[in-house]
Amino acid sequence: METLVEIIARKRDGGALTEPQIARLIRAYTEGDLADYQMSAWLMAVFLRGMNDDETVALTRAMLHSGDVLELSSVPGLKVDKHSTGGVGDKVSICLAPLVAACGVPVPMVSGRGLGHSGGTLDKLEAIPGFDVRLDVDTFARIVGEVGTCMIGQTDRIAPADRKMYALRDVTATVECIPLIVASILSKKLAEGIDALVLDVKVGRGAFMKTEAAARALARALVRVGTLSGKRVTALLTDMSTPLGLTVGNALETREAIEVLHGGGPADLVACTMALGEEMLIAGGAAADATEARAKLDRAIASGAAADVFRRMITAQRGDPSVVDHPDRLPQAPEVVEIAAAEAGHVVAVDPLEIGLSAVALGAGRTRADQVVDPAVGLTLLAPLGTAVTRGQPLCRIHARSKADIEAVQDRIRNAFQVGPEPAPRAPLILGRVDA
Amino acid sequence: METLVEIIARKRDGGALTEPQIARLIRAYTEGDLADYQMSAWLMAVFLRGMNDDETVALTRAMLHSGDVLELSSVPGLKVDKHSTGGVGDKVSICLAPLVAACGVPVPMVSGRGLGHSGGTLDKLEAIPGFDVRLDVDTFARIVGEVGTCMIGQTDRIAPADRKMYALRDVTATVECIPLIVASILSKKLAEGIDALVLDVKVGRGAFMKTEAAARALARALVRVGTLSGKRVTALLTDMSTPLGLTVGNALETREAIEVLHGGGPADLVACTMALGEEMLIAGGAAADATEARAKLDRAIASGAAADVFRRMITAQRGDPSVVDHPDRLPQAPEVVEIAAAEAGHVVAVDPLEIGLSAVALGAGRTRADQVVDPAVGLTLLAPLGTAVTRGQPLCRIHARSKADIEAVQDRIRNAFQVGPEPAPRAPLILGRVDA
Repeated sequence: METLVEIIARKRDGGALTEPQIARLIRAYTEGDLADYQMSAWLMAVFLRGMNDDETVALTRAMLHSGDVLELSSVPGLKVDKHSTGGVGDKVSICLAPLVAACGVPVPMVSGRGLGHSGGTLDKLEAIPGFDVRLDVDTFARIVGEVGTCMIGQTDRIAPADRKMYALRDVTATVECIPLIVASILSKKLAEGIDALVLDVKVGRGAFMKTEAAARALARALVRVGTLSGKRVTALLTDMSTPLGLTVGNALETREAIEVLHGGGPADLVACTMALGEEMLIAGGAAADATEARAKLDRAIASGAAADVFRRMITAQRGDPSVVDHPDRLPQAPEVVEIAAAEAGHVVAVDPLEIGLSAVALGAGRTRADQVVDPAVGLTLLAPLGTAVTRGQPLCRIHARSKADIEAVQDRIRNAFQVGPEPAPRAPLILGRVDA
Repeated sequence: METLVEIIARKRDGGALTEPQIARLIRAYTEGDLADYQMSAWLMAVFLRGMNDDETVALTRAMLHSGDVLELSSVPGLKVDKHSTGGVGDKVSICLAPLVAACGVPVPMVSGRGLGHSGGTLDKLEAIPGFDVRLDVDTFARIVGEVGTCMIGQTDRIAPADRKMYALRDVTATVECIPLIVASILSKKLAEGIDALVLDVKVGRGAFMKTEAAARALARALVRVGTLSGKRVTALLTDMSTPLGLTVGNALETREAIEVLHGGGPADLVACTMALGEEMLIAGGAAADATEARAKLDRAIASGAAADVFRRMITAQRGDPSVVDHPDRLPQAPEVVEIAAAEAGHVVAVDPLEIGLSAVALGAGRTRADQVVDPAVGLTLLAPLGTAVTRGQPLCRIHARSKADIEAVQDRIRNAFQVGPEPAPRAPLILGRVDA
């Protein structure tokens, strides 16, 4: 049998690896028999030499089986989850999971934390007083069965190889590699015990994928490899050239997601939630087509069923469900100021990267994985892309822990807004769809 | 200033790195600010993306300056060293260094140990009772000045970055990469304080470079980068399709090198030693051309001056100089048997890789860097390539620690000899020469 170094050399030389070779490599890494420095050499070889779909399926499977695979067969029906590649203001999961669950499709969701300019669902949920995202897998399965959805963080037992590899990729310039991204996403999601997965691949300056071509390539690879792994997988490409919705920051975003569950919320956030919800209802067998799905989603909001699922999920996860009806009980920042337009015109661009990084600077996110986030701080866009503004009209509200924090970010936020003489049309929110 | 990860990404994307970028990376690695797993990702990127000569010069310089650079200006004359890329039976350094020193050219030599099928000069020298290869740099400089040559091992203070990187390359499939090989060789050799370097790039099954084209590419890169680094560098390509000389194993090889100093020794070993000696005398300014150089080398042997330098070097390095005149005082193996030809004919091939690995199996070498070698064991080729043999004529003598060791290797050794009906011509020993 060849050595592990020979397996690294084979990929280095552009060869395709077999499933047993990939399985050995990942098992050795998980068990500590392959060192970090050997894995990172292999990751760089994969980055530069690529992997075909069979290899990516094998890698996904090896990473998936590096830990526990949740067993949700006790929950009746097709289990469906959604995964977003991440953006600024993307609080969709928080309203989408209860909404889809209210339509009868169980949604077991294992989410992540924010890192860099991009926020994380767990941080947003933890803005709810008492909310616990660290449940054991049995409790998780029980809540999915009883409430229809449950949202937790990746435990040590879910895809441990992925956690080790992701940490390594981040510091070895091997992040932006489609087969590695695909295996990382799918190994975690397939470990949830789902039957189908809907992907939201974000495109634009605030997203990981900056161009539609890159995002489409990732979406296609995710759908192909997910399908080869035996799951029903579809993907939407959605716009991230400007923040999604009007809020960035944990409590602010949770509050905005609650608005959607009550039938409100900004149009782009509602549109994104509904488009993904339609995919999930069809995948879960709860609707035959988009029209039927949309009608069910609308009814679940109008009837209060969606908000009720969210209340019950919060209760089950030890949080305070009264925030659903009294969102002002969510943490609020002590210092609030508004930034005004320096000139009249039209808001022709709101840079999502600058907005996201400004929110991080206020304490809403992390530049390193070990930082603690502040749930209360963030930004409210008062004049989003397309707004006609007069001179002195507020563009943005800053929610901060201190005046010094405001001082530190206000120029950056002002510069994130671009005001021009003519209105600039916004890109369509849904840029495309990929299925098997 | 860009981050270290951004420097890794730049090489990953095929960009050329600047000297300051390479210097930062190597300094950070030497000081522990760049982790092994980051260096190995960079090494794999270099393996797959390559480096131009300017980058290789910068890498050589950065690795060279990661530790002490020896100061030999107190020793008059141009200091010249020789480096071989390694082969089976290559004991040239042991006779060459005293021989060239006896002709008036100082030879400061920092050598390595054997690993895999290829032997190491230090192991061979340590077969001499008491011989100490672990001298401090001041003692090394003093002996070079007083005796004309001194042969030590790489200390912790010479090119520490190279030692760390070499250990990493060995386990991450990033060894066979010309810019990395060039920087590794030259950084160590330039740290010796030499003015000129003669390279012996071996070609064939027993060498690192299996083809003449690959060896020539390495030789050219070494000469180019060495010259750009301000040294006079030439290279010979020499044959390693069969072992060099008639012995493989530490004491056996040292004894054979002593024969050369006394005017004996097998023709191929003498020819290789003389060809490299001519290059070194010309580089060191002790001869105007090869004819003059060869005459000086011959005289140094005939007069006993070369053997005398070797005796004095051994004495200075705390070894027993009487082995030069009584080589039977070198360690001898307790078990000696001969392998006989199964049929009459001509020896048409002696596989150097199999011979080298058989010697390792007997204990003469290492499969891991932490193994201890047995100085006494090894092989004597009784019927080298080109010999006409009768049935039952001895092909090879095995010198072993035990009968069991002989049992374990004798079939392998027998199979390394190929006997055919017609003589097969041997490749020329000197296959080519590369200069600036």
